Amino acid sequence: MSGSWEEFFATHLPPTDFEDNRSLLKEFCERHDRQGHRIVLVTSGGTTVPLEHNTVRFVDNFSAGKRGSASAEYFLEQGYAVIFMHRLKSLEPFTRHFNGQKLLDMLEMQDESNNTTIRVKQDSVFALAPVLSRYQAAHAAGAILHVAFTTVSEYFWLLRAACEVLAKSGPRALLYLAAAVSDFYIPKDSIPTHKMQSESGPPVIQLHLVPKLLAPLVNLWVPSAYVVSFKLETEENLLIPKSRAALEKYKHKMVIANMLQNRHQRVLVVTREANQEILLSREELLAGADIEAGIVGVIVSHHSEHLAHSEAR
Amino acid sequence: MSGSWEEFFATHLPPTDFEDNRSLLKEFCERHDRQGHRIVLVTSGGTTVPLEHNTVRFVDNFSAGKRGSASAEYFLEQGYAVIFMHRLKSLEPFTRHFNGQKLLDMLEMQDESNNTTIRVKQDSVFALAPVLSRYQAAHAAGAILHVAFTTVSEYFWLLRAACEVLAKSGPRALLYLAAAVSDFYIPKDSIPTHKMQSESGPPVIQLHLVPKLLAPLVNLWVPSAYVVSFKLETEENLLIPKSRAALEKYKHKMVIANMLQNRHQRVLVVTREANQEILLSREELLAGADIEAGIVGVIVSHHSEHLAHSEAR
Repeated sequence: MSGSWEEFFATHLPPTDFEDNRSLLKEFCERHDRQGHRIVLVTSGGTTVPLEHNTVRFVDNFSAGKRGSASAEYFLEQGYAVIFMHRLKSLEPFTRHFNGQKLLDMLEMQDESNNTTIRVKQDSVFALAPVLSRYQAAHAAGAILHVAFTTVSEYFWLLRAACEVLAKSGPRALLYLAAAVSDFYIPKDSIPTHKMQSESGPPVIQLHLVPKLLAPLVNLWVPSAYVVSFKLETEENLLIPKSRAALEKYKHKMVIANMLQNRHQRVLVVTREANQEILLSREELLAGADIEAGIVGVIVSHHSEHLAHSEAR
Repeated sequence: MSGSWEEFFATHLPPTDFEDNRSLLKEFCERHDRQGHRIVLVTSGGTTVPLEHNTVRFVDNFSAGKRGSASAEYFLEQGYAVIFMHRLKSLEPFTRHFNGQKLLDMLEMQDESNNTTIRVKQDSVFALAPVLSRYQAAHAAGAILHVAFTTVSEYFWLLRAACEVLAKSGPRALLYLAAAVSDFYIPKDSIPTHKMQSESGPPVIQLHLVPKLLAPLVNLWVPSAYVVSFKLETEENLLIPKSRAALEKYKHKMVIANMLQNRHQRVLVVTREANQEILLSREELLAGADIEAGIVGVIVSHHSEHLAHSEAR
C-alpha cells in the first residue's frame, strides 16, 4: 500500500509556484554558502491531504507551528541562516508573539492638524521592542527565507528542492524536520473532482501510506548534513523505542521525541549514543520561557561536533 | 447513518469553556436587546472532525473565513450588533486586512535619550488608519462579540446556545450562517484514543452524516428570526436547484449560493420569490472591493422588510 518515493514524485505534479521557490532557495543558499554560514532548514506546521480535487475537504495534521517558529528565532540568534519552510498560515518567527488583534490593540491614533499619526502605546513598547528589533535585524541581514506549503505533496516537492541546494553546504547544513507530515494520503486517481454530495451517503475513505522521505534524504540527497527528525507520541512507553528504531532505520543523527500532552515542557533528545532530557520547570513555563531555546542549544553543540569531525577527516 | 440532532447533543459533551461563552452571549444579547438593536449572528470558517481523541489528525473543511469576517465589518457599518462565531485562527474582522508580518513591517522604532518609541511609518498610516478607527469604534461601543470553535461538535453547542439567547430578539435577529460545517463526522465510540500507528497499515475511515441543524433552528429555536444559509458548489448547474431545494426543505428565508472557483466575485441571492445575482467587475476586484458589501446590503434590506412585516402583524 505504500508506494516508493520515486513513484510519489512521478505521479504528483510539482506545485504551481515551484520554480519560483526553487530559485529563491538556490539564491539564498548560494549567498550564505559563499559566506561560510551554517544553514538550517526548519520545517514547521502540518500538511494536508485533499479529499477532493477542488479541495473543499481535507485531512489535516494538527500543528500550530509553535515548535518550528520558535526554533527558527533561536537558530537566528545562534548565527544560522534559516530556511523557514512552513504550512501556510501556521505560526511564523517573531509574529508568533502577537496575533493581529493584539497588535491592533497596541496602537493609538493621533490627529494633529490634518496629520494622522499612529503609534504603539507606551506600555506595549516594552513587549514589542525586543521582538521587533530582532525581526528587523534578521530581515535586514537576509538571514531568513520563508517558503510555504499546504498539502503533503507540496511539502515533498519543496523538501527535495531544498535538499538539492543544501547538499552544497555539506556538513554545515542542518535539517530540523519539525513539520507534522501526514502518514497517509489518498492517491490522485481515487480523489473525486467535484464536491462529494452528501445525498449519496457518507463516503468511505481508503488511505494509503505516504513514503518516508527520510530514507532518500539521509542516503542520497544530503548525506553530509546533520539531520534531526521528530517523534510525537501520546504513549510515554513508545517514545524511546520508536526513536531508537527510527535512528536505526534511517541512519540520521538525532530524534527529538515528545508527548503531545506536555511537548512544550519536556522533550527527549535521542542520539545513537545517549538520551538527554530537556525540561522546563513550572515557573519557567509560566514566565513564558520557550523550551525551543534549550533544544536549539543542544542541537547546535552537536552540530558543531559534527562539523569538527567532518573537517578532521 | 445520520442520527437526529437530539441524539448528537445527547452523545457529545459541551466544550470546556461552554458556560463562559453562554454567559457572554447572554450578556451581549440582553444589552443590545434593551437598546432595540438588530443583532446578527455571523458564523465563519470551517469545522474539524477529529480522527483521534488526542487529536493529532482531523478532517477539515476548507474556509479561510474571508466571507464571514468581511461581512461582520459591513454589518457593523449598518448598525448591527455582531456575534462573530468563528473557527479559531480563521480570519477576523479588521485584522483580516493585515497579517502579523505585514503589521510588523509597518512599524519603525526610534531611540531617543533612553526612551524607545515605536510608530507606524507615515506611508502605511493611509492604509491602516481607517481600519483601525473602525476597529476601535466597534470595540469601544461593545458592538462585537467574538466566540471561537474548532470541532463540529463545539460549533453545534455554540450555535444552539446563541439561538437560545437570540430568540428573545424575535424578528430583529438575523442569522448569517457562513461557516463551512462538516457534512460528515466520526462517532465518538469509533475514534481511537491514541495516535494511530502507521505500522498497523493504513486505516479506513467510515464517516457518518452530521444531522442538519437548520431544521430545528428554523422551526424551534429562532422561529421569528431572518435566517440566511450558504451553498458552496463546484458545479454551476447545481447552484439554483440545490438552493431552492434547501429553502423548500428548511423553510428559511434566503440562500447565498456560490461557486468555489469565483466566490469572491459572484454570488446568487436566492429567496422564495427570486434569484438575484451580485457581481464584482474585474476592476472592482483588482481595486480590492469586497463582494460582501453588496451581499450585506441586499440582506439588510430584506431583513428590514421582514421586520416591517412582523411588526404589521
